[in-house]
Amino acid sequence: MIDKVNLSDKLARFQDLWSPKAVGAVNDCWVKLVKLSGSFVWHSHEVEDELFLVLRGRLRMQFRDREITVDPGEFIIVPHQTEHCPVAEDEVHVLLFEPRSTVNTGTAGGTRTREVDWI
Amino acid sequence: MIDKVNLSDKLARFQDLWSPKAVGAVNDCWVKLVKLSGSFVWHSHEVEDELFLVLRGRLRMQFRDREITVDPGEFIIVPHQTEHCPVAEDEVHVLLFEPRSTVNTGTAGGTRTREVDWI
Repeated sequence: MIDKVNLSDKLARFQDLWSPKAVGAVNDCWVKLVKLSGSFVWHSHEVEDELFLVLRGRLRMQFRDREITVDPGEFIIVPHQTEHCPVAEDEVHVLLFEPRSTVNTGTAGGTRTREVDWI
Repeated sequence: MIDKVNLSDKLARFQDLWSPKAVGAVNDCWVKLVKLSGSFVWHSHEVEDELFLVLRGRLRMQFRDREITVDPGEFIIVPHQTEHCPVAEDEVHVLLFEPRSTVNTGTAGGTRTREVDWI
Protein backbone atom coordinates (compact mmCIF):
# COMPACT_ATOMS: atom_id res chain seq x y z
CA MET A 1 0.00 0.00 0.00
CA ILE A 2 1.43 3.35 -1.03
CA ASP A 3 1.57 5.89 1.78
CA LYS A 4 3.42 9.06 2.56
CA VAL A 5 6.21 9.30 5.14
CA ASN A 6 6.42 12.13 7.65
CA LEU A 7 10.05 12.75 8.57
CA SER A 8 9.34 14.17 12.05
CA ASP A 9 7.15 11.19 12.93
CA LYS A 10 9.86 8.76 11.87
CA LEU A 11 12.59 10.68 13.71
CA ALA A 12 10.54 10.47 16.92
CA ARG A 13 10.66 6.68 16.77
CA PHE A 14 14.33 6.22 17.62
CA GLN A 15 17.01 7.82 19.74
CA ASP A 16 20.11 5.76 19.05
CA LEU A 17 22.98 7.57 17.36
CA TRP A 18 24.95 6.61 14.26
CA SER A 19 22.48 3.86 13.40
CA PRO A 20 20.65 4.58 10.12
CA LYS A 21 17.00 3.48 9.85
CA ALA A 22 15.37 2.73 6.50
CA VAL A 23 12.18 4.66 5.69
CA GLY A 24 11.83 4.19 1.93
CA ALA A 25 13.12 2.39 -1.16
CA VAL A 26 13.56 3.86 -4.64
CA ASN A 27 14.57 0.97 -6.86
CA ASP A 28 17.98 -0.14 -5.53
CA CYS A 29 18.44 2.88 -3.30
CA TRP A 30 17.19 3.39 0.21
CA VAL A 31 16.10 6.48 2.05
CA LYS A 32 17.41 6.37 5.61
CA LEU A 33 17.23 8.61 8.65
CA VAL A 34 20.04 8.89 11.15
CA LYS A 35 20.83 10.90 14.27
CA LEU A 36 24.43 11.93 14.81
CA SER A 37 26.32 13.40 17.75
CA GLY A 38 30.06 13.51 18.21
CA SER A 39 32.55 12.09 15.75
CA PHE A 40 32.29 8.97 13.58
CA VAL A 41 35.13 6.93 12.04
CA TRP A 42 37.09 7.64 8.89
CA HIS A 43 35.83 5.41 6.10
CA SER A 44 34.92 5.20 2.44
CA HIS A 45 32.55 3.14 0.30
CA GLU A 46 33.90 1.02 -2.52
CA VAL A 47 31.08 1.61 -5.02
CA GLU A 48 28.34 3.59 -3.29
CA ASP A 49 27.86 7.35 -3.44
CA GLU A 50 26.18 8.72 -0.32
CA LEU A 51 23.88 11.73 0.01
CA PHE A 52 23.50 13.54 3.35
CA LEU A 53 20.57 15.97 3.53
CA VAL A 54 20.67 17.85 6.83
CA LEU A 55 17.28 18.25 8.54
CA ARG A 56 18.47 19.66 11.88
CA GLY A 57 21.76 20.84 13.34
CA ARG A 58 25.09 21.40 11.65
CA LEU A 59 27.03 18.58 10.06
CA ARG A 60 30.77 18.88 9.59
CA MET A 61 31.87 16.57 6.81
CA GLN A 62 35.60 16.04 7.10
CA PHE A 63 37.67 15.03 4.10
CA ARG A 64 41.40 14.38 4.13
CA ASP A 65 42.15 17.77 2.59
CA ARG A 66 39.33 19.96 3.88
CA GLU A 67 36.01 20.16 5.68
CA ILE A 68 32.55 21.21 4.50
CA THR A 69 29.87 22.42 6.91
CA VAL A 70 26.34 21.41 5.96
CA ASP A 71 23.31 23.16 7.49
CA PRO A 72 19.57 22.37 7.36
CA GLY A 73 18.22 22.67 3.83
CA GLU A 74 21.56 21.65 2.37
CA PHE A 75 22.95 18.34 1.18
CA ILE A 76 26.34 16.94 0.29
CA ILE A 77 27.09 13.91 -1.84
CA VAL A 78 30.20 11.94 -0.91
CA PRO A 79 31.43 10.08 -4.00
CA HIS A 80 32.45 6.44 -3.67
CA GLN A 81 36.07 5.79 -2.71
CA THR A 82 36.30 9.17 -0.99
CA GLU A 83 37.47 9.04 2.62
CA HIS A 84 35.23 11.02 4.92
CA CYS A 85 34.42 11.38 8.59
CA PRO A 86 31.13 12.99 9.70
CA VAL A 87 31.27 15.10 12.85
CA ALA A 88 28.32 16.60 14.75
CA GLU A 89 29.03 19.10 17.52
CA ASP A 90 25.43 18.93 18.70
CA GLU A 91 22.75 16.45 17.65
CA VAL A 92 22.26 16.41 13.92
CA HIS A 93 19.41 14.75 12.02
CA VAL A 94 20.16 13.60 8.50
CA LEU A 95 18.27 12.04 5.63
CA LEU A 96 20.49 9.66 3.68
CA PHE A 97 19.94 8.52 0.13
CA GLU A 98 22.25 5.75 -0.98
CA PRO A 99 22.36 2.29 -2.55
CA ARG A 100 20.80 -0.30 -0.26
CA SER A 101 24.14 -2.12 -0.13
CA THR A 102 25.76 0.80 1.72
CA VAL A 103 27.26 -0.12 5.11
CA ASN A 104 27.56 2.80 7.54
CA THR A 105 31.26 2.21 8.19
CA GLY A 106 32.08 1.37 4.57
CA THR A 107 35.22 -0.65 4.04
CA ALA A 108 36.58 0.35 7.47
CA GLY A 109 34.17 -1.93 9.37
CA GLY A 110 34.67 -2.19 13.12
CA THR A 111 32.56 -1.87 16.22
CA ARG A 112 30.46 1.03 14.93
CA THR A 113 29.03 -0.98 12.06
CA ARG A 114 25.23 -1.26 12.27
CA GLU A 115 22.54 -3.27 10.53
CA VAL A 116 19.81 -1.13 9.02
CA ASP A 117 16.34 -1.71 10.45
CA TRP A 118 13.12 -0.44 8.89
CA ILE A 119 11.06 1.88 11.03
CA MET B 1 35.23 19.02 -6.63
CA ILE B 2 32.89 17.99 -3.82
CA ASP B 3 30.64 20.77 -2.61
CA LYS B 4 27.38 21.07 -0.74
CA VAL B 5 24.11 22.09 -2.39
CA ASN B 6 21.77 24.65 -0.82
CA LEU B 7 18.19 23.87 -1.85
CA SER B 8 16.93 27.46 -1.54
CA ASP B 9 19.77 28.77 -3.68
CA LYS B 10 19.03 26.23 -6.39
CA LEU B 11 15.28 26.88 -6.28
CA ALA B 12 15.94 30.59 -6.83
CA ARG B 13 17.63 29.81 -10.14
CA PHE B 14 14.55 28.80 -12.10
CA GLN B 15 10.90 29.65 -12.36
CA ASP B 16 9.52 27.31 -15.02
CA LEU B 17 6.96 24.79 -13.85
CA TRP B 18 6.85 21.02 -14.33
CA SER B 19 10.44 20.99 -15.57
CA PRO B 20 12.75 19.08 -13.18
CA LYS B 21 16.33 20.35 -12.80
CA ALA B 22 19.18 18.06 -11.76
CA VAL B 23 21.17 19.11 -8.69
CA GLY B 24 22.99 15.92 -7.71
CA ALA B 25 23.83 12.34 -8.69
CA VAL B 26 23.99 9.32 -6.37
CA ASN B 27 25.26 6.47 -8.51
CA ASP B 28 22.52 5.90 -11.11
CA CYS B 29 19.98 8.12 -9.36
CA TRP B 30 19.58 11.84 -9.71
CA VAL B 31 18.41 14.43 -7.22
CA LYS B 32 16.15 16.90 -8.98
CA LEU B 33 14.21 20.00 -7.98
CA VAL B 34 10.90 20.93 -9.56
CA LYS B 35 8.25 23.61 -9.14
CA LEU B 36 4.65 22.60 -9.67
CA SER B 37 1.41 24.51 -10.03
CA GLY B 38 -1.86 23.23 -11.41
CA SER B 39 -2.39 19.72 -12.68
CA PHE B 40 0.01 17.46 -14.59
CA VAL B 41 -0.84 14.49 -16.84
CA TRP B 42 -1.66 10.95 -15.83
CA HIS B 43 1.35 8.74 -16.40
CA SER B 44 3.46 5.92 -15.03
CA HIS B 45 7.09 4.83 -15.28
CA GLU B 46 7.94 1.41 -16.65
CA VAL B 47 10.84 0.61 -14.31
CA GLU B 48 11.56 3.67 -12.22
CA ASP B 49 10.30 4.36 -8.71
CA GLU B 50 9.95 8.06 -7.97
CA LEU B 51 10.33 9.88 -4.64
CA PHE B 52 8.66 13.26 -4.07
CA LEU B 53 9.87 15.14 -0.98
CA VAL B 54 7.78 18.28 -0.49
CA LEU B 55 9.77 21.39 0.47
CA ARG B 56 7.01 23.98 0.16
CA GLY B 57 3.25 23.92 -0.44
CA ARG B 58 0.86 21.00 -0.55
CA LEU B 59 1.13 18.28 -3.16
CA ARG B 60 -1.92 16.19 -4.04
CA MET B 61 -0.79 12.90 -5.51
CA GLN B 62 -3.69 11.36 -7.35
CA PHE B 63 -3.85 7.62 -7.95
CA ARG B 64 -6.62 5.85 -9.84
CA ASP B 65 -8.27 4.69 -6.62
CA ARG B 66 -7.41 7.45 -4.15
CA GLU B 67 -5.41 10.58 -3.44
CA ILE B 68 -2.67 11.31 -0.90
CA THR B 69 -1.87 14.83 0.28
CA VAL B 70 1.80 15.47 0.95
CA ASP B 71 2.94 18.45 3.02
CA PRO B 72 6.40 19.94 3.68
CA GLY B 73 8.61 17.52 5.59
CA GLU B 74 6.85 14.54 4.04
CA PHE B 75 7.65 12.35 1.07
CA ILE B 76 5.83 9.81 -1.05
CA ILE B 77 7.36 7.12 -3.24
CA VAL B 78 5.39 6.19 -6.35
CA PRO B 79 6.33 2.64 -7.36
CA HIS B 80 7.03 1.89 -11.02
CA GLN B 81 4.05 0.97 -13.17
CA THR B 82 1.71 2.89 -10.88
CA GLU B 83 -0.44 5.49 -12.61
CA HIS B 84 -0.33 8.85 -10.90
CA CYS B 85 -1.10 12.49 -11.53
CA PRO B 86 0.47 15.22 -9.35
CA VAL B 87 -1.72 18.24 -8.61
CA ALA B 88 -0.66 21.48 -6.91
CA GLU B 89 -3.35 23.95 -5.93
CA ASP B 90 -0.74 26.61 -5.22
CA GLU B 91 2.94 26.55 -6.10
CA VAL B 92 4.68 23.50 -4.69
CA HIS B 93 8.43 22.89 -4.52
CA VAL B 94 9.56 19.29 -4.59
CA LEU B 95 12.84 17.41 -4.32
CA LEU B 96 12.82 14.27 -6.48
CA PHE B 97 15.02 11.18 -6.09
CA GLU B 98 14.75 8.83 -9.02
CA PRO B 99 16.81 6.88 -11.53
CA ARG B 100 18.47 9.20 -14.03
CA SER B 101 16.53 7.48 -16.81
CA THR B 102 13.23 8.81 -15.45
CA VAL B 103 11.25 10.95 -17.93
CA ASN B 104 8.82 13.38 -16.30
CA THR B 105 5.84 12.15 -18.32
CA GLY B 106 6.82 8.47 -18.09
CA THR B 107 5.34 6.26 -20.79
CA ALA B 108 2.59 8.79 -21.55
CA GLY B 109 4.94 11.19 -23.34
CA GLY B 110 3.35 14.20 -25.01
CA THR B 111 3.84 17.94 -25.04
CA ARG B 112 4.68 18.23 -21.35
CA THR B 113 7.78 16.06 -21.63
CA ARG B 114 10.93 17.94 -20.62
CA GLU B 115 14.65 17.35 -20.87
CA VAL B 116 16.44 17.62 -17.53
CA ASP B 117 19.03 20.37 -17.32
CA TRP B 118 21.63 20.71 -14.57
CA ILE B 119 21.50 23.89 -12.56
